[in-house]
Amino acid sequence: MEHFEARLQKLAEITVKIGVNLQPEQELIITANLNEAGLVRRIVAEAYKAGAKNVAVMYGDEQNVLARYRYGSQRALEYAPGWYMDAIARAHQEGAARLAIYGDNPALLKDVDPEKIAIHSRAQAQAGHRISELISGFAVNWSIVSHASPEWAKLVFPQLDEVQAMERLWEAIFQTSRINTADPIAAWQAHDAELQTRIRWLNAKRYAALHFRGPGTDLQVGLAEGHLWAGGSGVAKNGVRCLPNLPTEEVFTMPHRERVEGWVSATKPLSLRGQVLEGIRVRFEAGQAVEVQARQGQEVLEKLLETDEGARRLGEVALVPHSSPVAQTGILFYNSLLDENAASHIALGRAYVENLEGFEGASEAERRARGYNQSLIHVDWMIGSDQVEVDGISSDGRSEPIMRSGEWVALPSS
Amino acid sequence: MEHFEARLQKLAEITVKIGVNLQPEQELIITANLNEAGLVRRIVAEAYKAGAKNVAVMYGDEQNVLARYRYGSQRALEYAPGWYMDAIARAHQEGAARLAIYGDNPALLKDVDPEKIAIHSRAQAQAGHRISELISGFAVNWSIVSHASPEWAKLVFPQLDEVQAMERLWEAIFQTSRINTADPIAAWQAHDAELQTRIRWLNAKRYAALHFRGPGTDLQVGLAEGHLWAGGSGVAKNGVRCLPNLPTEEVFTMPHRERVEGWVSATKPLSLRGQVLEGIRVRFEAGQAVEVQARQGQEVLEKLLETDEGARRLGEVALVPHSSPVAQTGILFYNSLLDENAASHIALGRAYVENLEGFEGASEAERRARGYNQSLIHVDWMIGSDQVEVDGISSDGRSEPIMRSGEWVALPSS
Repeated sequence: MEHFEARLQKLAEITVKIGVNLQPEQELIITANLNEAGLVRRIVAEAYKAGAKNVAVMYGDEQNVLARYRYGSQRALEYAPGWYMDAIARAHQEGAARLAIYGDNPALLKDVDPEKIAIHSRAQAQAGHRISELISGFAVNWSIVSHASPEWAKLVFPQLDEVQAMERLWEAIFQTSRINTADPIAAWQAHDAELQTRIRWLNAKRYAALHFRGPGTDLQVGLAEGHLWAGGSGVAKNGVRCLPNLPTEEVFTMPHRERVEGWVSATKPLSLRGQVLEGIRVRFEAGQAVEVQARQGQEVLEKLLETDEGARRLGEVALVPHSSPVAQTGILFYNSLLDENAASHIALGRAYVENLEGFEGASEAERRARGYNQSLIHVDWMIGSDQVEVDGISSDGRSEPIMRSGEWVALPSS
Repeated sequence: MEHFEARLQKLAEITVKIGVNLQPEQELIITANLNEAGLVRRIVAEAYKAGAKNVAVMYGDEQNVLARYRYGSQRALEYAPGWYMDAIARAHQEGAARLAIYGDNPALLKDVDPEKIAIHSRAQAQAGHRISELISGFAVNWSIVSHASPEWAKLVFPQLDEVQAMERLWEAIFQTSRINTADPIAAWQAHDAELQTRIRWLNAKRYAALHFRGPGTDLQVGLAEGHLWAGGSGVAKNGVRCLPNLPTEEVFTMPHRERVEGWVSATKPLSLRGQVLEGIRVRFEAGQAVEVQARQGQEVLEKLLETDEGARRLGEVALVPHSSPVAQTGILFYNSLLDENAASHIALGRAYVENLEGFEGASEAERRARGYNQSLIHVDWMIGSDQVEVDGISSDGRSEPIMRSGEWVALPSS
């Protein structure tokens, strides 16, 4: 097996070339944690080699996040810096691409009062509203990649010591990022082509709804009128094709904000706002989450749903086969970027504009009537497993299989 | 002697309380290098305890600076992010205080083409023009503190190994920051009171010029009409008294941009743009540097003077006694923040508005006529030593001693 440094270098290369697909003369904004400098430096060098006119690394430090909760005043909780968020938004409007390096400690805030977290998360979401719109509106090419961190690794592998846990987590990141293949760039191109074939098939079907059935789940997810399936690479509004998530195994579309009915049970724990939520069960009625249960973290979940009107409704439904490389690691990552590529999932909150045909030309009232949901939040949670079946329901009520035992049904030979 | 961590904690406390004097509900912007996180985290905690509504840490990474020069295109050299610089300026306009943690590797760019450095420095100065105006215009309370770094420590103590060199450099920083006293806050208050007494004495004198004499130096520095002496703590335009430099031993005022005459020799090497300049000699005529020599780094110096018209003229003249704690360490720090507090000095470039009486009410033409100099640069260099004498020349041509053998003459008992 290749040396760690060599594989980190390959991860930096596919991040710049396949993930962001940075263009000559383009600017790149990177958000990362302090302990991720080793990968960040490699990415910065690759970005300049690719012709970047500037690479701005916006480092965060989880210790300073904790300091705000520990020592900060009420005013500090209620405040988020508009001058900072607006600057990032301006950079994207001026054409800057975006890369997030994600290795947060999923349990960072486990001892913080959920009420404080809710107050500050809301302030941040409001101050960052324009950035969210630009990114979810796919204004520029962007990507997210994972990075191991000691706290995260220990949560995933509690039985190992820190060094071993870090090694195992990096191994899983390299494997699911297809770094362990002979030619990672070619591997990603082939995988993306497969995703695009599945997307064309689903788009041709024009299903009115999806039906999920499994242990504790009997959920009908009505789809938005004129919904589009997407996944793998996409072309941003600036004309650049990029791969927004590394790894990515999902195809996803837009639920109808008022047409979700039934009970659904999460199949994995959800890491949210520095806490780990387990045993989530939710009942939807006319699109709205009307009953909410969680064996652990119920208060955090309830606060989340109180964010705004759209927080109780779905903004995404995504299908992932149980045979995906992420699922095959058998690891629960407590990290949506990886876990959402191990199982089919739904997301509470904001929908993606690329999942609705003619979004730009439609009025706000029309978008809403067709099913588009708006919210400050977008939180994915896993509802798929090898025991979950998914059917497509056509507008005349006919039902046909999409997934069986967690796997795609075979595509008809064309 | 106290444990290192305890002294670092004291440094964090005086930085927030004496240096920045952060106010409740105020925001704080910190610029720092990645390897300074240990001190930064302590400062962030102290700032939140002092009531900060937000602490934004803008981390830089010298490796990424090098990557730009090594791999970046011509466009990357010519570009600096306006969206970023404007955001910092906006934050200050909205009231944010500023703290710079300074531990740069003084020789970082020693192998980089000076032409490239000049191009990028100019782009940065232009993009950061509003920030410079706000800081040099003392719009908000701000401060700079030093932080040891391995490369810097090895440059200062080349005969020691890295661990020993870091220990020695930290020891010098703690000592010159008065951390090694029983009550550092009281020590700074007493020292500041002494500086204010010296400033009142100089302001009462209304000298027309200062005359520096020493080895290789015979320089007359005419002072701006209505010049004001300043130093130690000052009150920013937002009404907050702060100590802009930690440590600080100087009192300084504004030269007249057209009234500097004669030869001056630097008494210490100057660390500039990642290079170390030695043996600087300059001749001034009618305020302008007309002859420039440097035993090492002449090209960097010449590029600096080509920045703009004001880069050839003086923006500051400062007096520091040879008995200052910084001079007493006997260490050449290759760092202006410390070295400028070991010796009297002058600065090429931009003047400080607080050094001119009635600056706000004066037109640009009037300011200029009274001697105010504008430039994108402000570069201090040391011209004092225990062999340099300083006289004050009054408007009728009388001369009286200010410093002898590098020390203040005694104040008349009042």
